[in-house]
Amino acid sequence: MSTMRGFGIIVPNKETGWVTKDVPDLGLFDALLSPVAVCPCTSDVAGARVRGVGARRILGHEAVGRIEAVGSMVKDFKVGDVVAVPAVTPQWFHPDVQDGLHQHISKPLGGRFLSSQWDGVFGEYFKVPDVDMNVALVPDDISMASAALVGDMVTTGFHGPELADIKFGDTVVVIGIGPVGLMSVAGAAIRGAGRIIAVGNRPHTRELAMEYGASVTISYKDGPIYDQVMELTGNKPVDSVILAGGTTDNMAEAYRMTKCGGTIANIAGQNKDFLLKASESTSFVAHKNLTGGLCPGGRRRLERLIELIRYGRVDPDKLISHTFHGFDKIEDAFNLMADNPADVVKPIVYI
Amino acid sequence: MSTMRGFGIIVPNKETGWVTKDVPDLGLFDALLSPVAVCPCTSDVAGARVRGVGARRILGHEAVGRIEAVGSMVKDFKVGDVVAVPAVTPQWFHPDVQDGLHQHISKPLGGRFLSSQWDGVFGEYFKVPDVDMNVALVPDDISMASAALVGDMVTTGFHGPELADIKFGDTVVVIGIGPVGLMSVAGAAIRGAGRIIAVGNRPHTRELAMEYGASVTISYKDGPIYDQVMELTGNKPVDSVILAGGTTDNMAEAYRMTKCGGTIANIAGQNKDFLLKASESTSFVAHKNLTGGLCPGGRRRLERLIELIRYGRVDPDKLISHTFHGFDKIEDAFNLMADNPADVVKPIVYI
Amino acid sequence: MSTMRGFGIIVPNKETGWVTKDVPDLGLFDALLSPVAVCPCTSDVAGARVRGVGARRILGHEAVGRIEAVGSMVKDFKVGDVVAVPAVTPQWFHPDVQDGLHQHISKPLGGRFLSSQWDGVFGEYFKVPDVDMNVALVPDDISMASAALVGDMVTTGFHGPELADIKFGDTVVVIGIGPVGLMSVAGAAIRGAGRIIAVGNRPHTRELAMEYGASVTISYKDGPIYDQVMELTGNKPVDSVILAGGTTDNMAEAYRMTKCGGTIANIAGQNKDFLLKASESTSFVAHKNLTGGLCPGGRRRLERLIELIRYGRVDPDKLISHTFHGFDKIEDAFNLMADNPADVVKPIVYI
Amino acid sequence: MSTMRGFGIIVPNKETGWVTKDVPDLGLFDALLSPVAVCPCTSDVAGARVRGVGARRILGHEAVGRIEAVGSMVKDFKVGDVVAVPAVTPQWFHPDVQDGLHQHISKPLGGRFLSSQWDGVFGEYFKVPDVDMNVALVPDDISMASAALVGDMVTTGFHGPELADIKFGDTVVVIGIGPVGLMSVAGAAIRGAGRIIAVGNRPHTRELAMEYGASVTISYKDGPIYDQVMELTGNKPVDSVILAGGTTDNMAEAYRMTKCGGTIANIAGQNKDFLLKASESTSFVAHKNLTGGLCPGGRRRLERLIELIRYGRVDPDKLISHTFHGFDKIEDAFNLMADNPADVVKPIVYI
Repeated sequence: MSTMRGFGIIVPNKETGWVTKDVPDLGLFDALLSPVAVCPCTSDVAGARVRGVGARRILGHEAVGRIEAVGSMVKDFKVGDVVAVPAVTPQWFHPDVQDGLHQHISKPLGGRFLSSQWDGVFGEYFKVPDVDMNVALVPDDISMASAALVGDMVTTGFHGPELADIKFGDTVVVIGIGPVGLMSVAGAAIRGAGRIIAVGNRPHTRELAMEYGASVTISYKDGPIYDQVMELTGNKPVDSVILAGGTTDNMAEAYRMTKCGGTIANIAGQNKDFLLKASESTSFVAHKNLTGGLCPGGRRRLERLIELIRYGRVDPDKLISHTFHGFDKIEDAFNLMADNPADVVKPIVYI
Repeated sequence: MSTMRGFGIIVPNKETGWVTKDVPDLGLFDALLSPVAVCPCTSDVAGARVRGVGARRILGHEAVGRIEAVGSMVKDFKVGDVVAVPAVTPQWFHPDVQDGLHQHISKPLGGRFLSSQWDGVFGEYFKVPDVDMNVALVPDDISMASAALVGDMVTTGFHGPELADIKFGDTVVVIGIGPVGLMSVAGAAIRGAGRIIAVGNRPHTRELAMEYGASVTISYKDGPIYDQVMELTGNKPVDSVILAGGTTDNMAEAYRMTKCGGTIANIAGQNKDFLLKASESTSFVAHKNLTGGLCPGGRRRLERLIELIRYGRVDPDKLISHTFHGFDKIEDAFNLMADNPADVVKPIVYI
Repeated sequence: MSTMRGFGIIVPNKETGWVTKDVPDLGLFDALLSPVAVCPCTSDVAGARVRGVGARRILGHEAVGRIEAVGSMVKDFKVGDVVAVPAVTPQWFHPDVQDGLHQHISKPLGGRFLSSQWDGVFGEYFKVPDVDMNVALVPDDISMASAALVGDMVTTGFHGPELADIKFGDTVVVIGIGPVGLMSVAGAAIRGAGRIIAVGNRPHTRELAMEYGASVTISYKDGPIYDQVMELTGNKPVDSVILAGGTTDNMAEAYRMTKCGGTIANIAGQNKDFLLKASESTSFVAHKNLTGGLCPGGRRRLERLIELIRYGRVDPDKLISHTFHGFDKIEDAFNLMADNPADVVKPIVYI
Repeated sequence: MSTMRGFGIIVPNKETGWVTKDVPDLGLFDALLSPVAVCPCTSDVAGARVRGVGARRILGHEAVGRIEAVGSMVKDFKVGDVVAVPAVTPQWFHPDVQDGLHQHISKPLGGRFLSSQWDGVFGEYFKVPDVDMNVALVPDDISMASAALVGDMVTTGFHGPELADIKFGDTVVVIGIGPVGLMSVAGAAIRGAGRIIAVGNRPHTRELAMEYGASVTISYKDGPIYDQVMELTGNKPVDSVILAGGTTDNMAEAYRMTKCGGTIANIAGQNKDFLLKASESTSFVAHKNLTGGLCPGGRRRLERLIELIRYGRVDPDKLISHTFHGFDKIEDAFNLMADNPADVVKPIVYI
């Protein structure tokens, strides 16, 4: 167990492939896991192609893992346990958690470790910090796919409706219906939304959006989102907009279409600057709330989302569009995600 | 249009029957309505048999009505409009609404008019105050039954999950699954609850509870609720309890089974005193929150709940267990509610 | 009482002066008032010089008034009552108030009437809509100056700490310490702030800021606000920033200096567009909340703020820098506000 | 350093005195401290005389300490540091903290260690768990007395206004004005309260209450609290009541005097059962919120409260009524607290 293979960065922003690394050393509270099922994420692609993650870093942060070794202070998990792993896996022992945002410990996004601060889940082994605080047992009555999706797609998607502070009967717009946006649709539907307007181009994801609870879908190709939404609502501003994709241009449209007192909630990393127009914001005194945040992680969060799956409130499995078998197929799955053909929602690799 | 018949109180706490009253005079902002569909409520029964509502008061507060006349300052409604009427119909022009609780204007429960402060909906005509603020048009795409249920059963039932401040994945207990409690189950399911434990005796309502989203049902007859819930959860306290019936004894059990930081939310009028035990409340420093409240009314509330019905989030129609036709059948429907045989959930009378 | 003089707009964006208008007609719920004390506001100046308020509109929205006549439905006030008048005086009888933001009834800022939708308080008479809902009696134990300031300077200033959602011990930056910003400082100090950093140039207002509870003041002239704040905090982001002035450039700085999970609250009308930089916002997923809103009005709001004055929590009188006597001096007071010499904080005219 | 003396329990519920114990072993994240200044608390007295804390347990949980040794994983503190110690010092490494209530980790009140789960601060040495998460450096610009009071009196007292969810201008009643209640008065005054009505008997604490921001004080001896408060308010229910003492009888009065939508917040351990009367609670549907909770601990909490002291928002030093010097004087200070003569507010012992 001294070296391991993993799929990651060869040349930053340029080339991906297989690297050999040392198997990580464990801290007292850490665990070493082997992947059971992994999913590539658009943010893996962005990390490899745009954001310049460094050479030799193994990618991947969505996984079910099997615990292979635990640090001496780990209490609640043991070798052989099969667990869901969240994308946000902070070292919880930091006073910043006492201010309530474990996603941003010590710095913005400081709670992300897998593939951000150390090697990710696309290796033969990967390390999870503070494992008693970060992972959740996979119960028998949920699928491996659901367990692999809960730690990023579900928690990120569901964070949209949380940030949007939905009230019973709200009209909610979800911009971007990739897998995260689809989970925002599903989350909005079980958070009290009335009408849900989902925005996306692909017929397949538009159909899925309807299955997950959208009331109607519209396409970027059919004109400005703002105009289409206003036509649907009879020019009534909406209660909230969740940005699960799209661009900062859509953010400006979202700001404009939101009612006084409403919320624009961003859950997708946005790379471009965003011009808030005084004219569209009533001089910034219209009580429009603009917010956005990285998904919550942590064991209790996963356990709560798993409850939603167990009791039939949401079924993430429909997100899986492509299935691979075998560790070496991680590369194919990643490339599929990078190529992003029209029928891809979410690939999974069972190891 | 100078006198009218109505079903109400003959002898307080003793006898009900038909009375003849003057057709109400209209204020500037009021409307006169005729009933299109009405439902008797257990609180009509309680008003007539227990709470001593005065002689000659016409009962009833759940209705769809047709507007027959409007005061000269009414702007948004006109004769012929068919509207949903809420149980709470305040005179909105009072500064207390600025403190946010229109249910309690000028005094506790001061926002209830129909059958509380003046004659109710079981008359040939009934008056709604501040009609622009209180009623909502019934859209074509919802049923008359849903429209009749939205103003009390749905708004009351859904207030339970609101007061309980449900988070994604919460375990929620709903005690009492008459029509209000069933709507609390349905509301909890679309407010983010994970596991929902519903408490009731009747096989029929237990089945309905499962259809509305309960994960399991238990019966008062099978031992203390506290014990049954703890067995289901493996002795883990629950996140919140909604009391939609039951007694204050159940309130004590609810307090005991709720986690530190959790909420006990009462939405049913409770007539008995309630002993909070220091031993079960950890000396009242365990951050358990005990609250309860009369349902919200108002036009925007109805419109929001109607959105939930239109977009398929909840279907109140399943609550209707008995259907009557004709104004004179109000008496039969009321008596059915009063007798409360095992198969009654909610009767409706189409006029 | 058929015509009246008032100080207002002669040529939009160009010339102000005295106009003669009809005394307003009263609606059923309205009152006609004569001014007892008035204060000109920078937003009067902006209305007259920048925002193009129309010709012959009488300006002014900060006043204590004496009730001269009331509509026939007014219940709680009578001729002779001396009342505080808020800047936001909505017609409360609109269902939008049921969504909780009376400032924005039917449209953004739709709750402003005085000098926005009809003539303001710089006339011999002025009309207040829905007077039972909008004004508050001036008690004997507060000064006329405090009563004149409560309806805009105090409610606007105090809305900053409310929007900023201050917690005990927060570090709060207040940008702009004109009279509104000074009230934000005072409000932050009695809302739980620890360290308050106030930003302004004038020595006099910086001294006042310290009296109202600032821990330190800094000047725009001494370099970028961001740099100065970071030096004071040892590069620790602050909990919240209240913009009570400044420009949208300061809004960008404010966004940058706020911690993950913190709030940037704007209470001053901002005329320029605002570039939110992805690089400074961590791709808009750092849980920074940008919000802003017009001050609350309404009778209960005024009564609450008057309580704060009566019980010694805040003393607005220190804001008064210049005192005039006589109706005709409104012009001098307005011109002083427009010229804005270094020693002006707030002029008052006692009629 | 193998044994140490400490003041604690000789015979449960009967006798206190000096015991000799082993100096505690340190865990990896723990620190060993020696007391610099300690204060006895009424809950030490209750623990020794009523609640049956076990034999040979050393008492005390309010202290400034000097760090004498640290576990090998401690990062932020070193030998010689002088730190404020909170009454609630949880082991933070437990998933229950992810649900937000560190006071109740694994069980109600499970976050209390000092004198509850192991020996307290009245020993020559005492152990603090998870010291990086639990203690705060004492800055040069606050007094030792303030530092000793911040971890229980201030955090407990300030939790009252937090639980009461005070809004600007609220009328707040504080029942019980021992040192905790006095801090509730001070906290309410800087949390936005308007009128503060403080309830206590002793002339000295009533004077202190006025200094800390009370608007008026009343005495239990002058008739039912309910009647006195209603007389002061002209029969208007109050916005919230903080119980910082008193009995459960006062809790019933508090429930009765609170407005619909208001909060009754208990911060003192109450030993007696509490009858909530349906008649006084409007059948529990009046939106009255009854809550209560143990004070927050944790490093960030202390740091925030220290900010309030540094920036002059509150001065806890006035609570100190009696000063002792020398470790052996802990016994005298404890006995003084137990005897509770009229002039005692808070004794302190400088070691």
